Amino acid sequence: MKLWQKENTVTSEKIERFTVGRDREMDLHLAEFDVLGNLAHATMLETIGLLTSDDLTALKAELIEIYAQIQQGDFVIEEGVEDVHSQVELMLTRKLGDIGKKIHSGRSRNDQVLVDMKLYTRDRLFQVVQATEKLFDVLISKSEEHKNDLLPGYTHLQIAMPSSFGLWFGAYAEGLIDDVIQLNAAYRLANRNPLGSGAGYGSSFPLNRTLTTALLGFEGMHHNVVYAQMSRGRTEQAALTAISSVAATVSRLAMDVCLYNSQNFSFIVLPDDLTTGSSIMPHKKNPDVAELLRAKTNRMKALPMEITMVLSNLPSGYHRDMQLLKEILMPAFDEILDCLDIAAFMLENIKVKQNLLIDAKYDLLFSVERVNELVINGVPFRDAYRQVGAEIGDGSYAAPRELKHTHEGSIGNLQNDLIKGRMDNELTRFEFDKVKVALANLTA
Amino acid sequence: MKLWQKENTVTSEKIERFTVGRDREMDLHLAEFDVLGNLAHATMLETIGLLTSDDLTALKAELIEIYAQIQQGDFVIEEGVEDVHSQVELMLTRKLGDIGKKIHSGRSRNDQVLVDMKLYTRDRLFQVVQATEKLFDVLISKSEEHKNDLLPGYTHLQIAMPSSFGLWFGAYAEGLIDDVIQLNAAYRLANRNPLGSGAGYGSSFPLNRTLTTALLGFEGMHHNVVYAQMSRGRTEQAALTAISSVAATVSRLAMDVCLYNSQNFSFIVLPDDLTTGSSIMPHKKNPDVAELLRAKTNRMKALPMEITMVLSNLPSGYHRDMQLLKEILMPAFDEILDCLDIAAFMLENIKVKQNLLIDAKYDLLFSVERVNELVINGVPFRDAYRQVGAEIGDGSYAAPRELKHTHEGSIGNLQNDLIKGRMDNELTRFEFDKVKVALANLTA
Amino acid sequence: MKLWQKENTVTSEKIERFTVGRDREMDLHLAEFDVLGNLAHATMLETIGLLTSDDLTALKAELIEIYAQIQQGDFVIEEGVEDVHSQVELMLTRKLGDIGKKIHSGRSRNDQVLVDMKLYTRDRLFQVVQATEKLFDVLISKSEEHKNDLLPGYTHLQIAMPSSFGLWFGAYAEGLIDDVIQLNAAYRLANRNPLGSGAGYGSSFPLNRTLTTALLGFEGMHHNVVYAQMSRGRTEQAALTAISSVAATVSRLAMDVCLYNSQNFSFIVLPDDLTTGSSIMPHKKNPDVAELLRAKTNRMKALPMEITMVLSNLPSGYHRDMQLLKEILMPAFDEILDCLDIAAFMLENIKVKQNLLIDAKYDLLFSVERVNELVINGVPFRDAYRQVGAEIGDGSYAAPRELKHTHEGSIGNLQNDLIKGRMDNELTRFEFDKVKVALANLTA
Amino acid sequence: MKLWQKENTVTSEKIERFTVGRDREMDLHLAEFDVLGNLAHATMLETIGLLTSDDLTALKAELIEIYAQIQQGDFVIEEGVEDVHSQVELMLTRKLGDIGKKIHSGRSRNDQVLVDMKLYTRDRLFQVVQATEKLFDVLISKSEEHKNDLLPGYTHLQIAMPSSFGLWFGAYAEGLIDDVIQLNAAYRLANRNPLGSGAGYGSSFPLNRTLTTALLGFEGMHHNVVYAQMSRGRTEQAALTAISSVAATVSRLAMDVCLYNSQNFSFIVLPDDLTTGSSIMPHKKNPDVAELLRAKTNRMKALPMEITMVLSNLPSGYHRDMQLLKEILMPAFDEILDCLDIAAFMLENIKVKQNLLIDAKYDLLFSVERVNELVINGVPFRDAYRQVGAEIGDGSYAAPRELKHTHEGSIGNLQNDLIKGRMDNELTRFEFDKVKVALANLTA
Repeated sequence: MKLWQKENTVTSEKIERFTVGRDREMDLHLAEFDVLGNLAHATMLETIGLLTSDDLTALKAELIEIYAQIQQGDFVIEEGVEDVHSQVELMLTRKLGDIGKKIHSGRSRNDQVLVDMKLYTRDRLFQVVQATEKLFDVLISKSEEHKNDLLPGYTHLQIAMPSSFGLWFGAYAEGLIDDVIQLNAAYRLANRNPLGSGAGYGSSFPLNRTLTTALLGFEGMHHNVVYAQMSRGRTEQAALTAISSVAATVSRLAMDVCLYNSQNFSFIVLPDDLTTGSSIMPHKKNPDVAELLRAKTNRMKALPMEITMVLSNLPSGYHRDMQLLKEILMPAFDEILDCLDIAAFMLENIKVKQNLLIDAKYDLLFSVERVNELVINGVPFRDAYRQVGAEIGDGSYAAPRELKHTHEGSIGNLQNDLIKGRMDNELTRFEFDKVKVALANLTA
Repeated sequence: MKLWQKENTVTSEKIERFTVGRDREMDLHLAEFDVLGNLAHATMLETIGLLTSDDLTALKAELIEIYAQIQQGDFVIEEGVEDVHSQVELMLTRKLGDIGKKIHSGRSRNDQVLVDMKLYTRDRLFQVVQATEKLFDVLISKSEEHKNDLLPGYTHLQIAMPSSFGLWFGAYAEGLIDDVIQLNAAYRLANRNPLGSGAGYGSSFPLNRTLTTALLGFEGMHHNVVYAQMSRGRTEQAALTAISSVAATVSRLAMDVCLYNSQNFSFIVLPDDLTTGSSIMPHKKNPDVAELLRAKTNRMKALPMEITMVLSNLPSGYHRDMQLLKEILMPAFDEILDCLDIAAFMLENIKVKQNLLIDAKYDLLFSVERVNELVINGVPFRDAYRQVGAEIGDGSYAAPRELKHTHEGSIGNLQNDLIKGRMDNELTRFEFDKVKVALANLTA
Repeated sequence: MKLWQKENTVTSEKIERFTVGRDREMDLHLAEFDVLGNLAHATMLETIGLLTSDDLTALKAELIEIYAQIQQGDFVIEEGVEDVHSQVELMLTRKLGDIGKKIHSGRSRNDQVLVDMKLYTRDRLFQVVQATEKLFDVLISKSEEHKNDLLPGYTHLQIAMPSSFGLWFGAYAEGLIDDVIQLNAAYRLANRNPLGSGAGYGSSFPLNRTLTTALLGFEGMHHNVVYAQMSRGRTEQAALTAISSVAATVSRLAMDVCLYNSQNFSFIVLPDDLTTGSSIMPHKKNPDVAELLRAKTNRMKALPMEITMVLSNLPSGYHRDMQLLKEILMPAFDEILDCLDIAAFMLENIKVKQNLLIDAKYDLLFSVERVNELVINGVPFRDAYRQVGAEIGDGSYAAPRELKHTHEGSIGNLQNDLIKGRMDNELTRFEFDKVKVALANLTA
Repeated sequence: MKLWQKENTVTSEKIERFTVGRDREMDLHLAEFDVLGNLAHATMLETIGLLTSDDLTALKAELIEIYAQIQQGDFVIEEGVEDVHSQVELMLTRKLGDIGKKIHSGRSRNDQVLVDMKLYTRDRLFQVVQATEKLFDVLISKSEEHKNDLLPGYTHLQIAMPSSFGLWFGAYAEGLIDDVIQLNAAYRLANRNPLGSGAGYGSSFPLNRTLTTALLGFEGMHHNVVYAQMSRGRTEQAALTAISSVAATVSRLAMDVCLYNSQNFSFIVLPDDLTTGSSIMPHKKNPDVAELLRAKTNRMKALPMEITMVLSNLPSGYHRDMQLLKEILMPAFDEILDCLDIAAFMLENIKVKQNLLIDAKYDLLFSVERVNELVINGVPFRDAYRQVGAEIGDGSYAAPRELKHTHEGSIGNLQNDLIKGRMDNELTRFEFDKVKVALANLTA
């Protein structure tokens, strides 16, 4: 049964399968948010006289009952029902008859799915931010733990200057702050109310969009109804772009882990739980977890392109193409959450090798220290640089192994407290609590 | 149980889930091909003395039994078994004991999955070629049917010159030939034997790779064992590139259908089965099938990028990252086959409007006809062009509506027979029959 | 001459050409920012005793002289000089001898180019924001001018509901606000000080990075020196992502213009200046400007992928690969600024057709109005929907052409003032004035 | 002056700059091919009576004169002339008056630029194939030279099994064969005649397209005129896809070089010419050439996406967007040719370290040899695998360092002759000689 079904139409099964696709599966993730949207819309309809006070009371009770079913995992989209919106309306109509038939007034499935997607995306981005914060905490903690464990620093994959595990872990922590900035930009785009934009051209009913904006805890509304519709796809794009930013950070970290775990570097040790064997080589302990982390996060970096492909050169106005965006976006949230969780788990269990720089292979790491000694003693930098080059050439160079790096952000002064402070500051910008309070009131 | 399981290792469930991912689901599609690879490998092992003649007889009987199970849909990867390769080896070992344990000699899971993927990809590309041919046939047939039905031709989305439905359908048919050329390039890359390359560095056993190449019906082998391994990912990439080439043709066709079906063009009519309604606008008949066809095929165009992302800057040698390629490639085959099927169905059911060019709006389509009249009468082209421009400007232009397009490939001379001939010629290059014969012999 | 040239090395010309590539051309755009970085670094070196007060005075005078040359367009990178950093150091050394040789103390070309790129990107993003604001203003002004000019609204490219040019122009204006949010995220990433991170592992000199951060007007510093280096590429990526967000808005607008300008829609008229002719069809007025706007902005959407490609799976630490990022990013700024300028110009000159909805073809646009009339009179929405569907089917439907859309963001209530308020609010977040003041002090 | 210029039109300079863009620069590369197209078109026009025999003689003489100018580098597109097609027509008209004005009969700039692009792309692909062959030859030669120099083989970046430089170089050689297959698919798409398709809808003149197909040495024609136009963009896409396939091979090779050159691997040595120094670290010899090779080839992998972006969802028929394809495609040819040349140069000069496997760190490379010894002595594979695992665990494992790899494609049997044979076979498919003969006849 479809809401728009015309009586003389027979839609063949083949077409049905093609058009519905994975949509019912995806829509299950929207159920919770569809109910929230219905609660806000119904509450508003009553204020403009399109529902009676009794209608609203009945609808709210029923919607909160459905909300509870969803929370308990008991909600299903019945066989033959097209989508989550139809399912909810069907349940209301079954129970409440004509009252259920009134709730779609002043609304289209276009703004209904839009508001569901906004609420869903906002909620999932919140989870991604939390998982990012957790990984950040592990990195900061590891950085502090290993601030005195030195590591060769490379440029061009060539031995360059002394680094430390403190710097290495801390660098990825600080990188996650920039990812959170991207996540915030996406969050703000998701946190806008499209409800009331109808099919993209508004309604002749005197809807109160300011009210639904407040009820759903949005930062504000998409004012222009044509733009509200046009934000479909853009919200998904922004979310995937932010996800792929986090993914890029994790993938680079995973690449380092794979490299540092190679016998030719041998800087870290992965516990047996995080390695796997070979079907043919009995000696292998392969870092499959780090490799799959790398692969999965790398793959995610292509996802924004899928959205772009679908949207490119579509004129303004809704197109059914938009439906496909769900199955691009939704699994990506699961994947990134999984990857962030595994990355944190991997880092917690990584062992770091100590005293790495004792190896004579790493003597040249200290050449700049030698240059700087000369500079401190008054030799102009360029001349000191040439002198040390000559020392290396004729074998007279001796590595000055004592490090005196003290400036902000250097080996001896990691400033992890300031980095942590920056992260905390970025997190407050989300104002997650406002959303929680609004939704708690709506479902009370 | 894993083939490489070390006794003192406990792999946590979280890690298990992360590393196995969707792999067991994907591997079911490989079962048939894994058995083929096993049959060829076992046959070869016997010729070099690593299996006795009795061993081989027993293994072949059992493998053909498993092959039959797969064909009947009865094959499963049991709970706790890591992949299809382990499952098949387990089944052999259960039945045949030590004989089953011998079959992995001279082989690694790396070349085992490689040969499975080659056989799988070859097989699925064959299906894509067949579906493409079917769509081609529909297009040619429609082109012939409507060769006299004129259509406005556009450049810059501006009315330009007369076209016809014959040209329009036929154009997409000819486009599919170029897609088949891309498919052939991918097919040839899939049609190479990697078996015997082991983990990517060959074996100290005197394997006979020429024999397995012939048994599996391959065009030839990847000689260099390091390259055989390096072809992982490249094969998938080539296949997805070819798929996205077909997809691009279908997506452009779908865009035309959506546009031509708009009331502002109104060139074609879609049957009710291919349209859907709106939840709010009672008058709508939306071309959702064409839109989803467009969206799905557009999305596919981003898939090669996913492979590229995973492979970029991986040094040579196998990495577990490769596992992820399966779940990028495999669903794409289902999707393109589905899209090709629906596209053919849609075109078969499309109705074409007649006498479109009678509308005065289309008078200017004939301006070049007028220029050409003057040229035939001896006016140099550039002067004739200016004269007709002036006629249009002062209102004296009269559209010469009789068309005399007769040259190769023009409205009056579509050459669909030659186009069909080209397609047939491209199809013979695949030599599908050779493969069929080889596989029939192997499983006899 | 290269700063690192070893005396016994001959670099062949072929290699020189390959490695320098377009870098000297790109580096000209960095000259201004390289001087700013030098001024801040020198000022700081004096405070920690690595330059005398007299050294600093001499260097500042000379740097401000070079700055003036750059502003006047007189700065060149001399033949044989590798990059802008070498050129500036060379000029200083020529004039000041040993004092010039001291300025590279505590710095590497890695953090030098990093700080140049940050300053450059910050500056160019500022220009993009300004150009976006200008386009926004044109759109708002057009929206107000045409708020009473109705336009058919489409969904699925099918006639749907009444819209207006006021809504259409205003929608793109509001869309630009979301682009500015993306631009702000990129701006914040560019607005961080990497100076003092050296080759990516800091320095043994007691650098005062807080001081250079303040002198250059940065919001803060990249604390961790390894991360400072790792931000290379990420900054460029974020900038291109934001640019491609703006580009996507413009490209969709251009698609609408191309479509609406087609004779089959005929909603707008482009002035002759914005159309071009055909070499063969004397009647053509093609919307080439809109088409090239569409193409250029569409192309830009692939640019973030180029950065991703270069960076993927590079381990941490600087790699020469980073150099290529300049020639991906820098031309994109020119291109987007050009496109924003032309888009504003095009919109200012576009003519809008009036009374479009009088055409009987558009009667069905009003079907929801009819449904809503029934709902207002007490018919439940679903029943009203079915009744109007039946009216359309039996021909009794009469379009109620009077529109009563009054809610927030609808045809009768565009809320352009609130949209303008949102844009202003987003713009204040950039705090451009702080930067201007800091740079004015530095170059005073 | 423009061919389509209407007298009452003033095109502003801003618009001129925006629409012409880099097109005149790009068009210079087309000049040679534009003349070839003109020669073929004129020759054909004479056979159908649209040129007299004298006209043709005059035009041919003049065109061959222009062709010579181009070969000598003396051809320019004059200030104010829009494109190469206008320039050539202008030169003909200046010299020959009315005869020059006749040559555009039965042609549009759309099919003129199409045929130019086909000829250009075919020619440049030929050059790419030649450069690929040259790199292939270097790789084969290096493989033979170092067939006895062993190298650790890695899987998962973990020490796995013995490999050799013979295998490593040879693997990349064989990989180039698969790239040539992709290049051939692109070549065949470029090698089709679009001339006679006009603006995409053919002509009312009785053009002889079979004749121009033969004259220009094409494999055949794009029959359907609508498809001929639709092949615009597809040809470029196919070419860039093939280029990016070659690029991917080179980029992976470059990644290996960067890694193997790191002190932690130290498998190869780059000559000083191929390394550069650091501005701060006097000891550095960085592999900048390999890094830039990696970056440039990686970037190229995103180029097909740029074409896709421009073409996505454009309805059929020419759009000005197509113009932008030139500046995506053309520089890519220069870049890939440059990269192939540098890659060959780098490989020729690379030094390989010998006796690498003597290091005890590599003992475990031989574990499979030990397993295979046991299998040869009758232990089932799975049991032998477990036994060696136990030996490694308890320290009793001794590496059997004698290698007996003899099968096809393994260390002891590289089959470089067969690989070379395959490459030769693929090269013959291009039938370059046919093209050369046709073009020599045309310009004689």
